[in-house]
Amino acid sequence: MRNMLCALAAAGATLVALPASAQFAKPEHAIEYRKSAMFLIGQHFGRLGAMANGRAPFDAKAAAENAAVLQSLAHLPWAGFVEGTADGETKARPEIWKENDKFRAAATKMQDELTKLDAAAKSGSLEQLKAAFGPAAQSCKSCHDNYRSK
Amino acid sequence: MRNMLCALAAAGATLVALPASAQFAKPEHAIEYRKSAMFLIGQHFGRLGAMANGRAPFDAKAAAENAAVLQSLAHLPWAGFVEGTADGETKARPEIWKENDKFRAAATKMQDELTKLDAAAKSGSLEQLKAAFGPAAQSCKSCHDNYRSK
Repeated sequence: MRNMLCALAAAGATLVALPASAQFAKPEHAIEYRKSAMFLIGQHFGRLGAMANGRAPFDAKAAAENAAVLQSLAHLPWAGFVEGTADGETKARPEIWKENDKFRAAATKMQDELTKLDAAAKSGSLEQLKAAFGPAAQSCKSCHDNYRSK
Repeated sequence: MRNMLCALAAAGATLVALPASAQFAKPEHAIEYRKSAMFLIGQHFGRLGAMANGRAPFDAKAAAENAAVLQSLAHLPWAGFVEGTADGETKARPEIWKENDKFRAAATKMQDELTKLDAAAKSGSLEQLKAAFGPAAQSCKSCHDNYRSK
C-alpha cells in the first residue's frame, strides 16, 4: 500500500495532478483566465440568446457553431477560481471558496445545460434551441446571483 | 441569375453571413473578445512551452489536454479584429487592417502550427512536442512582431 502511494505520488508530480493554482504564474493570471473565459462564453451565449429570443434571425449553422464553441469553453473558467484570488480585479465573491462544493455543483450544472443546448442547436430546430436556452440562461443567472458581486 | 442572387441575399440575412463587426454589440467588445481569446491561448501555450523547454515535467496527458484546448481556441481571436477597432484598449497595430491579407495569412499559419502541435502532443512523445513547439512559437512571435505594439 505504501509502495502504491509512493508510486502514485511520483506519478502525480505532473501539471494535471498539481493544484490548479500551480498552473498560474500569478494570482492575477488566474483571475484574468476565468474572466477571459467567461467573457467569451457570454459573447457566444448572447448570440444564441438573440436567436432564441427573436432579436436575430435564426441561422441553424451559426447556432450550431456558437453552441460548439460554447461547449469547448464551458469547462475552462473553473480552473481559474483558485484559492486566494478573491481580491484583485474580480467580482468573485468569497462564498465561492466558503461553500466551494456548492459552487462546483453550480458550475457542473451550467456545463450540463450547455451540453443540452449544444444538442438542441445541432438539431437545427429553433423550437429546440428556445427550449434549451431558458434553463441554460437560468444556470448562468443563479450562479451569478450567488457568487458574483453586482 | 438575379433570382439566385436574391435568394442568396435572403439566405444571407444571418449571423454568419453578416460582417464580423455585426457579431459585437460595441467595438470594445470585439477588442475584449480577441484579447480574452489571446490570453487563454497564451496560458495554455505557456504550459506546453514549459514542458517542451524542460521547465516543467513532461506529462503526456496534460500536454494532450492543453493542446486540445489550444486547438479549440486557435480560431477564435480573428473575428475580433474588426475594422474600426485600432483605437481603444488594444495593442493591435493599424497594419492589421492596412495589410489585412498578410495578417490573415499569419493567423492561418499560427492555426496550422497549432494543429501540428496538437498532433505532436497527442503522440505522447516529448521529442515530437519539442519539435513542433518551436515553429508554433515562431508563428506567434512573428505575428506579434509585425502587428502588436510593444
